[in-house]
Order: sequence, then C-alpha cells, then structure tokens
Amino acid sequence: MPSPVYVLGGYQTDFKRNWAREGLEIFDMFRETLQLGLDHAQLDAGDIETAHVGNFTAELFCNQGHLGGFFAAVDPALAGIPAGRHEGACASGSLAILGAAAEIEAGRYGVAAVLGIEMMRNVPGDQAAANIGGAAMWSGHECQGVKYPWPHLFSRLGDEYDRRYGLQHKHLAGIAKINFDNAKRNPNAQTRAWSFDALSFTEDDEANPVIDGRIRKQDCGQVTDGAAILFLASAERAHAYAAKRGIPLEAMPRIEGWGHRTASIAYDPKIAASRDQDYVFPHVRGTITDAFRRAGISGVDQVDGIETHDCFTTTEYMAIDHFGITPPGQSWRAVEDGSIAPGGRIPINPSGGLIGLGHPVGATGVRMLLDAVKQVTGKAGNYQVDGAKRFQTLNIGGSATTTISFVVGRG
Amino acid sequence: MPSPVYVLGGYQTDFKRNWAREGLEIFDMFRETLQLGLDHAQLDAGDIETAHVGNFTAELFCNQGHLGGFFAAVDPALAGIPAGRHEGACASGSLAILGAAAEIEAGRYGVAAVLGIEMMRNVPGDQAAANIGGAAMWSGHECQGVKYPWPHLFSRLGDEYDRRYGLQHKHLAGIAKINFDNAKRNPNAQTRAWSFDALSFTEDDEANPVIDGRIRKQDCGQVTDGAAILFLASAERAHAYAAKRGIPLEAMPRIEGWGHRTASIAYDPKIAASRDQDYVFPHVRGTITDAFRRAGISGVDQVDGIETHDCFTTTEYMAIDHFGITPPGQSWRAVEDGSIAPGGRIPINPSGGLIGLGHPVGATGVRMLLDAVKQVTGKAGNYQVDGAKRFQTLNIGGSATTTISFVVGRG
Repeated sequence: MPSPVYVLGGYQTDFKRNWAREGLEIFDMFRETLQLGLDHAQLDAGDIETAHVGNFTAELFCNQGHLGGFFAAVDPALAGIPAGRHEGACASGSLAILGAAAEIEAGRYGVAAVLGIEMMRNVPGDQAAANIGGAAMWSGHECQGVKYPWPHLFSRLGDEYDRRYGLQHKHLAGIAKINFDNAKRNPNAQTRAWSFDALSFTEDDEANPVIDGRIRKQDCGQVTDGAAILFLASAERAHAYAAKRGIPLEAMPRIEGWGHRTASIAYDPKIAASRDQDYVFPHVRGTITDAFRRAGISGVDQVDGIETHDCFTTTEYMAIDHFGITPPGQSWRAVEDGSIAPGGRIPINPSGGLIGLGHPVGATGVRMLLDAVKQVTGKAGNYQVDGAKRFQTLNIGGSATTTISFVVGRG
Repeated sequence: MPSPVYVLGGYQTDFKRNWAREGLEIFDMFRETLQLGLDHAQLDAGDIETAHVGNFTAELFCNQGHLGGFFAAVDPALAGIPAGRHEGACASGSLAILGAAAEIEAGRYGVAAVLGIEMMRNVPGDQAAANIGGAAMWSGHECQGVKYPWPHLFSRLGDEYDRRYGLQHKHLAGIAKINFDNAKRNPNAQTRAWSFDALSFTEDDEANPVIDGRIRKQDCGQVTDGAAILFLASAERAHAYAAKRGIPLEAMPRIEGWGHRTASIAYDPKIAASRDQDYVFPHVRGTITDAFRRAGISGVDQVDGIETHDCFTTTEYMAIDHFGITPPGQSWRAVEDGSIAPGGRIPINPSGGLIGLGHPVGATGVRMLLDAVKQVTGKAGNYQVDGAKRFQTLNIGGSATTTISFVVGRG
C-alpha cells in the first residue's frame, strides 16, 4: 500500500501585488514564498527532501526556465535536494502536487515542497494575452486571428451549453458576483478592494464590455502575479510532525483522493467527442468521480465546499454540473438558489477563485489545495466554511485539456 | 516495497533530420515518435495508462506549451490518459522518466509512455543560442553580454579543471574525436556523415575555431531536432508482456537504480561550494553514487558502459572522474589510454553522445536511457558494447544544476 500523503502547511503571497512595480524579479518572489512558507509551516529547509515547481510561462514572461534550480539558490541547505518543474498550462500547480505525492507514495522521500509561481504583470496586457494565448492551446491551429484566444474558447463553451441546454447571461454574471463578493473577505485577493456598481454585472457594454462573444470583462479571471507553497509528507513524517507539536494525527490535513485526466489539446475534438452525452466534458466528470472514488466517497454530497477553476464564468458553470451539484445543464439552478454561495449547500470558491482572488497560472493548483487545507483545518479566516471537514479542488489547463481534482480531509 | 520499473521498449528519431526543412511541426514529430514507438515496442495505445513529456524550449522555439495534450491528439485511444510535461533544462527527459517511474513505483499505473522531444533547427543558430542561453541559467544574472553563454560556462569548467589539476586541449579534443567516431556507427546520428581533416581537432583557429575560451567548434554538442520515447512498466505488466512473447522476465531491461540531485541554478556558487574538495561538482558525484547504491553495486567497475552528457567536451571530462573511472582530476588518463573508447575498459557514449549523435535537449535523457536499454539487450547494432549487461546514464541540465543518473540492467 502506498503511503497516504499529508499536508504539513503552506503559504500564499498577496495576489494584489504587482511584482515588477515593486522592482522584484521572479526569483525574489520564489525566495520570499519559500522562506515564508517554511516559517508558516514551522519547518526548516533541512526538512525538505524533494522539491517540485508548478509554472507555465516563466520562459515567455521572464526569459527564465529551469526553476528547480531556484531552491538551492534560496537556501544552501537545499543544495542537492532533487527538484523539477511541472507544466500543464493552468493546471501546472496540480501536476506538481501529483508529482510530489507520487514520490512520497513510492517511498522515495518523506517531505516534499511544492511551489507554484507565475509572474505575469511585467508585460502589457495584450502581450500577456499573446504569451498565454498560443502556448496552452494547439498553437497555429486554433483561434487563428482571434485577439483574445482564451475568452474566445470559453465563450464557445458557453455557446455549447446554450445549444444543449440554454444559457442566460445573468447566471454567468451571478457566478462572477459570488466570486468577487467572496474575494472581499480574502486578505490575499487581488480584487478585494475593487468596487462595482449596479451595471457592472449586466450586459451593459460600457460597464461590462464584451471581450469575446458572451465573455464580458467581469466574466474573466485575473492576470496575477502570485505564488503558493505546500509541504507534503508521508504518514511517518506527518506523524512525527504532529507528535512534536502535540497535534493528533487525525487533525492533520490529508489528500484523501485525486483524479487526473488529460484530453486532446484542441477544443473542437473534445466537444465532438461528447456530442451525444449529457456532460459537455465527460473526462472532467471522470476526473471528479475518480477523486470521489479514491477518497472513498460517493459524491459531492460528502464534500463541504469546492475550490474550482473559474478562468471564466463559463468554466465554473461547467464545473457546477460536472461536480454533480445539479443535473447536467442545470448549473443555473445552483446559482439562482444560493447553493454555491457562502452558507449554501455546497459553497464554491469561498476564496474568490480565479475571478476574485486571482489566477497566477502555475500557482493556482497549489493555491487551491492550500485553500482546501485551510478550510478543513478551520484556518480560512473570514472566508471559512463553517465546520468544513472535506474540500475538493478542480484545476484545469487549456480548454479542459489537463484536468486534476483533489479531495482533502483530515486524519 | 515499491514495484521495480521495467522498460518494454522504445524508439528514437533520426537526429540528422531537419524538421522545419521537411515542413514538419513539433506535433507532427510527436505523433510520428509516439506511433513508431508503439510499433517498435509492440504495444497498443490502449496499453498506456499514464504519459509524461520531457521538453525544455517548445514555448520559445514553437510557441507551444502544454505538450501533455498532444498524446490524445495523436490517438483517441489516449483520450483521458493522465499526462504532464517535465522541465529541468537539458535534463528534462530524465525528469520525465523519474516522474513516470514514481507513478509506477507508487502503484498508480502499470504502463507509462515517456516522450522527450525538442525542435530547435527552425530558427537561425544565433536565435537558438539566445533561446537556450538565458532560460536554463539564472537569467539576467549570469553571462551578461556574453554571446554564447553555454560555451562560456563550460569553458570556465575547463578553466577550473586547469586551475586545480591542469588541462590540455588535446584531451578535450580526444573526447570530441571519440564521440564523432562513435557517431559514424550510429544510424541515427546527426553527424554520421560528417567528415573531418587532420586539423579538425587541433587548436587551428580556422579548422577548429574558438567559440568561447577553450571551447572550440568540435568541443560542442549539436543543435538538433529529435525525439525519443520509452515505455516503462511495473513488474506485473512487464511479466505479462514478457510471458506473452515468450521472453523470460530475466531478459527484460530494468531500471536498477537512479540518482537525482539539484544544485543552485547559477554556476559560481557550485564552484565556490567545492573549493577545497577533490570533485569539482560533489553533487554530481553524489548523483552517480546514489545510482550505484540504489542499484546495489559498488562502483563503475560493475558497469559495462556509460551514456553521459557531453554538451561540451569539458562536461564529459568532468563526468569521467566523477564516475570514478579515474581519480579526480585525472580524466585525461582515460582519454589517453583508450579506457573510454569502444573496446576499452568502460566505453563512454558508444552512441556518439550529444557531440556526435546530437542533443535535442528535452529528448536527450530519454535517448540516453533508450541507448542503455539497447546495450543491455544486445540491440545496439554497430555500436554495441560486446556483452554489456549493465549501463549507466548521466544527464545534466544547466551548469550541472539538475543532475540525474540511471543504472539499467536486466531481470
């Protein structure tokens, strides 16, 4: 039996910060995140036995690859510790977690650092859009001549829902509003101080301009500088960590289950493949149910909250029915009846999500799991879901190409 | 106990090809490699349960990331199969192997595809040098204003050897000549038809011009388009594979051991850290001895041949003493006495290595392990090391930042 994988602690940066404006390079924030992460988790660098990075765009935004070499550059105590970088577009952080967890399950190492990082605000917005535009889709074959490729594809996801089941803008706007509202309670959220008016979430073309198709300004995740770190551990090391601090092992957060499925890189084949099926992305449903199965639970009713990908409101709209919160095509019901809002049946993105908290691409999967850990240990502060014992994540790369879900519980 | 990891088979492309000149994109060659790899290993796409990619520069050369999404784009039978990409500069391929092996050891999956790929000849040579120049070192902090950063750093490695132990050009030239000679016997080698004259390996500035410092033209690995694929399997799946084909499990190639250490990304701290030590890169020695230990062997005497990183002749010069073929600083002896040539005590790079066979960055680690597998199964054709039963690799990313070694044997 492989070792279960525990989470000793973690940390995330304030997603409001603009690193370039502070005169910081990606290495500076890698260092700060690693050092503050160790402090927050009460670990020494010498405790780390393996290190994984999630990052998508450092080559394009910072002319920097090979981020595994940053660990030992931060702290000589990490010299020699094996390290590597994982990339699966916006799911890079979750790939890094899966890779670290596999090493622990295999018995290779006892404690792993997983650091997700992305620096994106050091170039103009159009350049940022171009940088992440081609590389995560089938470059040169999709969205040719389209100014904003990702809003375009996720608008088409909305079109597909509309075609199969009907889709009204007000339900997408409702998702956006919940995320922005939640972000106001998250001290790390990029948009926590943003203000909106009565027209911000309407189809008013000035207050909420169209980016592409049915995707308007408020339907978009944020371009964000950010990093997050987690420390994963084997049962043996988690036990020692807990014992030393007088914490019962049952109180330690643990990855109870996970799912990981990858589809073809292009958007069209995915939609073609699901033509006669209830779910628009059956493989995303499979990722979620794989995580249920490995966690030994029967469905979303046994989950107390979700941190999901919402790069656009249509992404979260898709996540709602794919999690089984509503039957396929009826995600709008969960928006209308308050199911996914704080205090609802199954709160989604109490952190604010990618729309409200921000979306530093390679950091997002790590940040999601960190938020899940905060929730199940009662440390989510003003965005705590009362009494949460089990949380689930859904992290997506590309047009639902790389899809990864974790279930986090305790003990 | 984690499952041992077997190799069912693999394939590499002809490194002489220029993909852009053939009108091919990186996806086309990903597809060809995967399909021919399955054919060579006598596997169906449906046998694959997880998939890993090693790649360094696709964003910079091809504006393409997210290569995990290519698997299902090649073959619908791979839709849903979990996939991810690993990056550690020139050691990306070995990181992908380690990641796939960890999943098998953890019992997650039975058969993994590991595909390393790099397309680099689609841009002019100076652009290629710039693309790989900054991203694998500490960008903006090392080699500022240096035209060819990698020749510069590996020339400095030669300087360090010269300072500690003395180093003559003729021994670097000897390494180059062995690699080019070996490549003539490898039907996949980029340089197999290249011809040299009496001055090619001398310090003649016309026949063998200086690139940077003590690195001359013939001291350099090649800029190469190439891909390689391996199929790894658990003991259970390898047993079934062998039984179906009437092969005894003892004849199946297996990863007997591995080492993986990562140093600080910059060159200077590494040299400073080893100042008073015999080995210039003690962590590289550690990577090699970790692999010995995990393979249950005492040293290089129990290895029949080596495929090592030789991005430059100084890299291989370093590898020779770090493997323990000579005492530290005396690598020149193994060049002079024929130890590392075909038929010698411990042949190095019978394939031709990065200098003779070529160096498609993210493919190199996978290609090395594939060559080790060919050697221990007697399938290396004209570059077979007679009777080889155990082979070792050494793959290096950056200035010996990411260092990974595998020991491959049988049964």
